[in-house]
Amino acid sequence: MKTDALLQPNERIDQLASNDVQIIQSRDVFSYSIDAVLLSRFPKIPKRGQIVDLCAGNGAVGLFASRSTDAAIVAIEIQDRLADMASRSVQLNDLGQQVRVIRDDLSHALTHLEPSSTDLIFCNPPYFKLNEKSRKNESAHYLLARHELTTNLDEICKISQQLLKTNGHLAMVHRPDRFFEIIDTLKKYKLMPKRIQFVYPKADREANILLIDAIKDGKSGGEKFLPPLIVHKADGSYTDEVGHIYYG
Amino acid sequence: MKTDALLQPNERIDQLASNDVQIIQSRDVFSYSIDAVLLSRFPKIPKRGQIVDLCAGNGAVGLFASRSTDAAIVAIEIQDRLADMASRSVQLNDLGQQVRVIRDDLSHALTHLEPSSTDLIFCNPPYFKLNEKSRKNESAHYLLARHELTTNLDEICKISQQLLKTNGHLAMVHRPDRFFEIIDTLKKYKLMPKRIQFVYPKADREANILLIDAIKDGKSGGEKFLPPLIVHKADGSYTDEVGHIYYG
Repeated sequence: MKTDALLQPNERIDQLASNDVQIIQSRDVFSYSIDAVLLSRFPKIPKRGQIVDLCAGNGAVGLFASRSTDAAIVAIEIQDRLADMASRSVQLNDLGQQVRVIRDDLSHALTHLEPSSTDLIFCNPPYFKLNEKSRKNESAHYLLARHELTTNLDEICKISQQLLKTNGHLAMVHRPDRFFEIIDTLKKYKLMPKRIQFVYPKADREANILLIDAIKDGKSGGEKFLPPLIVHKADGSYTDEVGHIYYG
Repeated sequence: MKTDALLQPNERIDQLASNDVQIIQSRDVFSYSIDAVLLSRFPKIPKRGQIVDLCAGNGAVGLFASRSTDAAIVAIEIQDRLADMASRSVQLNDLGQQVRVIRDDLSHALTHLEPSSTDLIFCNPPYFKLNEKSRKNESAHYLLARHELTTNLDEICKISQQLLKTNGHLAMVHRPDRFFEIIDTLKKYKLMPKRIQFVYPKADREANILLIDAIKDGKSGGEKFLPPLIVHKADGSYTDEVGHIYYG
């Protein structure tokens, strides 16, 4: 299909220099950020089987990951507009055989997918609790993507426990200031956090992004804290490591 | 007193270039490591009041900290030989007015100190559980210092909760692979972890030291992960930050 026919007003196509997947974006609704890029590279990606992207947004995480696997990828997104953009990005990249977009509340995931069917779940969820200074002036699209309005940590972990095979992985990106709550909620649903990486905006700043890889029904103890990922040098340019992720 | 009179066979005096406190050490029993040096600098040190060093070993942590405070410092150590070395280091530095060494099991701390009397507790505890490959060929001194033979995480947190004032701080150094257990145990005793720092041997290696600052009866949430501390450059020399800590 011609690219133009897939774009709606105020939409653009973005692509990482390091990855040939093209993503339809729009500042009006939501654009992926470094969080999605880092999440898509964080877990070991199974070569076959099923990968689910919960809170998929415009589908960026699953689309990035599609380049490293033959697994079926299922993107679940509650917002019509974002699910529609994700579907059109699937068409744009001719990935209709591999990637399926489901427009639904993730609490209904088990009506679309079998229990214990999934090798890997990605999740870039809303970060903010409802009682945290919700920005009332945000568009509805941003509000839903950023705040726990339609789902929350507990529900995401509960659904993940149901969808994953034993020893399947949940890879999540979140905020460090909710780390202990995240750990408690994962453990409540027998998702054992095993690999954790903190991401720091600069070498001398506090962490502002958290990457967690948890294993369904894994044993407790022996958690690993991966090398720190620093995004910017002191002068504001990307570090070599992040530059490599973006530009190859 | 003359320095020589304070030394026993196989003992030496060590001093950081960045700190004029002299510490009596002996490879036969135990020497402080970077863990103790980092711990002594990690928390905000109260200018007055009472500081307790649990699992004090040869007293290095409390002695380092003495240079930044007028608070009374109490070092509790179960091993005779180490407590004796700590006492002689107190003499050596003429700190008898400020630093007191108690040779006892830390479970008896409340027979020496008042409950809710303490502003800051330092703890560099034994890191290894008893069921972890205990090195039977270690000397008794090293065994006790490294393995949870005479105390454990639960007891340390319980005693800390009793000793600390409300809003007093427990600063602990430990191993990242027990992080979740440490967090759970702190929270069990209403010691809320607030500031966490991971220490990495090199920039591209997993964390191998964990620093935690917990507040007695603090609120949950809003935990902070401080900038990563990298010990060595790729060539094995100290990073500028750690070089500064050692050499000033």
